[in-house]
Amino acid sequence: MDEKSPMNDTENASNAASVLYELNDILVSRRSASPQSSYVAQLLHSGEDKILKKVIEEAGEVLMASKDGDKNHLVKEVADLWFHNMVLLTYHQLQVEDVLIELQRRQYVSGLAEKASRQTE
Amino acid sequence: MDEKSPMNDTENASNAASVLYELNDILVSRRSASPQSSYVAQLLHSGEDKILKKVIEEAGEVLMASKDGDKNHLVKEVADLWFHNMVLLTYHQLQVEDVLIELQRRQYVSGLAEKASRQTE
Amino acid sequence: MDEKSPMNDTENASNAASVLYELNDILVSRRSASPQSSYVAQLLHSGEDKILKKVIEEAGEVLMASKDGDKNHLVKEVADLWFHNMVLLTYHQLQVEDVLIELQRRQYVSGLAEKASRQTE
Amino acid sequence: MDEKSPMNDTENASNAASVLYELNDILVSRRSASPQSSYVAQLLHSGEDKILKKVIEEAGEVLMASKDGDKNHLVKEVADLWFHNMVLLTYHQLQVEDVLIELQRRQYVSGLAEKASRQTE
Repeated sequence: MDEKSPMNDTENASNAASVLYELNDILVSRRSASPQSSYVAQLLHSGEDKILKKVIEEAGEVLMASKDGDKNHLVKEVADLWFHNMVLLTYHQLQVEDVLIELQRRQYVSGLAEKASRQTE
Repeated sequence: MDEKSPMNDTENASNAASVLYELNDILVSRRSASPQSSYVAQLLHSGEDKILKKVIEEAGEVLMASKDGDKNHLVKEVADLWFHNMVLLTYHQLQVEDVLIELQRRQYVSGLAEKASRQTE
Repeated sequence: MDEKSPMNDTENASNAASVLYELNDILVSRRSASPQSSYVAQLLHSGEDKILKKVIEEAGEVLMASKDGDKNHLVKEVADLWFHNMVLLTYHQLQVEDVLIELQRRQYVSGLAEKASRQTE
Repeated sequence: MDEKSPMNDTENASNAASVLYELNDILVSRRSASPQSSYVAQLLHSGEDKILKKVIEEAGEVLMASKDGDKNHLVKEVADLWFHNMVLLTYHQLQVEDVLIELQRRQYVSGLAEKASRQTE
């Protein structure tokens, strides 16, 4: 996190990405839980359209927070969007890791492309 | 990644989350690059509305891939959405870590709430 | 309405477009009504972001109904979307007629362009 | 159109709603036209997902124009959204009249509900 960022918490930050795996495990456990037991269990139970409605709604809120120029709000809305994306992945029996590996693959491909372009120069 | 997942690559998966930090660093470096140098540099240069247009468009594509029940496509579209969310964070001089810490904070809060509720039982 | 359409009601259809003006008048009257008096009065009172949230949510539902191939549902969701667009126009003290005139202007311009292109042929 | 509206063109306005029917007829005629012949013919030809992508993109632009408080821009974006909604209806062999009749039906129902509630008072 650089100095321009409104939040600063280097202690917690050290391996913040692990939260995605923890969250993923919790979401998976909610899949078999009773709908009454939690918000996620209820959402997973109410079906794909309800989850998709939340996804598009949160994407809309990202737009609004960005246009408001409210950085703290924007961070919260992106977190909401990613959270509901992960609920959707769970609904489809996918994992957050599938998304991370896809991003990694693209990185690798674009790294190779860059390397190749440097060699032809 | 469980056995139901269409992708399986435990080697790469070990610390796939680090890709978010690598990607974040690359996005930050694109901020000062010439618009011609890359897709991201061009997008960052063309302004907030162009980035937001991509965000909502990718959210729409997540909906379509989900309704198609095409898991591989869904993973790609969620990756696209997260990538463009990170471009937006970069535009606002925010970091992916801000989002991860927000998710971690909620996890911690909901963990405490759960603990408290167990104690009152 | 052609024969492929799931609805057929030529009586009502004769000047169905007038409903947009009637609806517009009702929406305008709700602007000064107490928030408790109706759904629209409440929505207008709760502010721009709540209205925009409905707009993007209804647009998402149009996508889902379309992907489901459910024509009756699609018609209802497009109606919902247009209704909430009109609430947004009302919020901004605009009228549905502004939108209709804009569509008419484009039609006229594209008619002229077509005529011009026919003359150059 | 009231005096607060940024546009004022009572001449054209007299029966502006007829533009929806004219537009509908044009869209229907584009369905059988060659993809090269016009933007709409191309869009109808490129399939449902391309049309839906435009729908969600235009809905996003409605949000942005609204947040910008730019009334002229908002009118244009709502016109774009309605236009692409009508392309989607055409794709599904539906008519704009189906949407207008649905809005009319709701009006009628809510009129009856209002009358009934007045009688019970």
